[in-house]
Amino acid sequence: MKTRIGIFGYGNLGRGVECAVRQNDDMELVAVFTRRDPAALSISTETASVCHAKDLEHWKDKIDVMILCGGSATDLPVQTPECAKLFHVVDSFDTHARIPGHFADVDAAASESGHIGIISVGWDPGLFSLNRLYANAILPDGHDNTFWGKGVSQGHSDAIRRIKGVKDAKQYTIPVEEALDAARTGNAPSLTTRQKHTRECFVVLEEGADAAWVEQEIKSMPNYFADYDTTVHFISEEELRTAHSGLPHGGFVLRSGVTGQSREHHHTIEYSLKLDSNPEFTASVLVAYARAAHRLAKEGQRGCKTVFDIAPSYLSPVSGEGLRASLL
Amino acid sequence: MKTRIGIFGYGNLGRGVECAVRQNDDMELVAVFTRRDPAALSISTETASVCHAKDLEHWKDKIDVMILCGGSATDLPVQTPECAKLFHVVDSFDTHARIPGHFADVDAAASESGHIGIISVGWDPGLFSLNRLYANAILPDGHDNTFWGKGVSQGHSDAIRRIKGVKDAKQYTIPVEEALDAARTGNAPSLTTRQKHTRECFVVLEEGADAAWVEQEIKSMPNYFADYDTTVHFISEEELRTAHSGLPHGGFVLRSGVTGQSREHHHTIEYSLKLDSNPEFTASVLVAYARAAHRLAKEGQRGCKTVFDIAPSYLSPVSGEGLRASLL
Repeated sequence: MKTRIGIFGYGNLGRGVECAVRQNDDMELVAVFTRRDPAALSISTETASVCHAKDLEHWKDKIDVMILCGGSATDLPVQTPECAKLFHVVDSFDTHARIPGHFADVDAAASESGHIGIISVGWDPGLFSLNRLYANAILPDGHDNTFWGKGVSQGHSDAIRRIKGVKDAKQYTIPVEEALDAARTGNAPSLTTRQKHTRECFVVLEEGADAAWVEQEIKSMPNYFADYDTTVHFISEEELRTAHSGLPHGGFVLRSGVTGQSREHHHTIEYSLKLDSNPEFTASVLVAYARAAHRLAKEGQRGCKTVFDIAPSYLSPVSGEGLRASLL
Repeated sequence: MKTRIGIFGYGNLGRGVECAVRQNDDMELVAVFTRRDPAALSISTETASVCHAKDLEHWKDKIDVMILCGGSATDLPVQTPECAKLFHVVDSFDTHARIPGHFADVDAAASESGHIGIISVGWDPGLFSLNRLYANAILPDGHDNTFWGKGVSQGHSDAIRRIKGVKDAKQYTIPVEEALDAARTGNAPSLTTRQKHTRECFVVLEEGADAAWVEQEIKSMPNYFADYDTTVHFISEEELRTAHSGLPHGGFVLRSGVTGQSREHHHTIEYSLKLDSNPEFTASVLVAYARAAHRLAKEGQRGCKTVFDIAPSYLSPVSGEGLRASLL
């Protein structure tokens, strides 16, 4: 009996989930839900339905796990608790500061309806968080460093696009190599995000726009760019399309710590990701946790969980015996 | 109420556990057990007792978790199931092929006595296994590569020491840089352990030994060295002591996989460790899982577990709420 998956929201992440479900024999995509006109939406899974979000309730007994693929700003805070009344749910809520509130909302909805909700699944929050937790538990006397990139930051790209005279833009966040090396050797206890990253911008101007003014606007933008080492390149629309159309990303989680009678032994734990497609990789993590949600639910578990609360074996289709024999 | 820890076996690993317990405020070392004369053993924790292994039973209600620090060849297969009759236990059993049998033995003993046993805890098996599992679940279409080193292999060092004319020796396992790079880019699907590592040996000869003969004996030793690119250096006893006295180790777990409509996007997940002291780091992992064992036991769990079966949050002294706010 396969885990029947629903997708709510069919942007980059939703399409990524569709691809990831196809890579897992124990899963099947049953339906995609959209708030737009379903007739206008073409998906690539022939056996799955396309439905309007208002019809969610009709699918209550036909879907095991709903994977929420909306944005963290306004979609997920509403959609995840709503869907948790009908299905087991998994989302990638990534506004770190608002996770406690979101957890409480999903926990209330899921507990009352007898479902499981796993929130903030992906790579950060998600796999990076897991690595911070494992590394902190193992090396209590140490310090963490997280680096992001090289990769496209959608938020920063959008911020550039809002500047007058900018037709399109793509922004890459890039870790500073020297800071990475310092973190690896335990010599970067207090580097700030700004000291650890540079920002590189590729900008297509509107006809007649003032490049020098646009560059100044970018470099002086508070929070986004002002305190960073920022480089701006003006390129053609054609070049943006051919050389910067992807959504690569990645990053590094490091923990450096000491052990021994006199804290004399140094250790470094490093986890890194190099991703050609940020949304497809995030989708792959979501699908693995959808498997976990379904299995935990069958064991009678209820309420909201995060990656911290789920034993690794639940992510794999392989039996405990098989895992011990092959991967331990 | 602190978790009361016992240590069985006081070699490098046992001393590492003693150091690691001191780094965790919620743990205390209660007693160290030895099969030698307790009066001859001096430990560095003033508040802990040193006892003979035959007195284990007297400590039944005074120790929560016993950490087994013996060897996998003959100690742990006997000691872990025996101790599981009296205490919750954690061991670092690392003979991969014999894990299923050891699991069954510990599960039988622990289930019957109402204890928890966590076996094969450390970094490989242990943290490396976890990373293989997470990465396989997330990227089902891909392949794994594990590299070990640079680090001291005790088994290989011992093998050299058994050769006639060798007074002392230390062997380092070193990953081949080109193989690592190939694995990172997804171009090393079928590299063997031999293709991925070289072996470097530092040997102190007995007075009058034949260096050329010893070198040949090492390089032609089946399984250990014959099929590897092996380098042999003859050094003085003094140099071995000053430059090669430590037990550093480490390694890399890589998974490289593809996603997308046409498998067009490539991803690499990499986990690596650089450890100044293999036994102290392994001990730190054991202590984190001792915390998990005690907490799981309080929830009524019983029987044998591995790192695959334990939710990450159990390793940390921080509450779920605190973890979500600080590390997610």
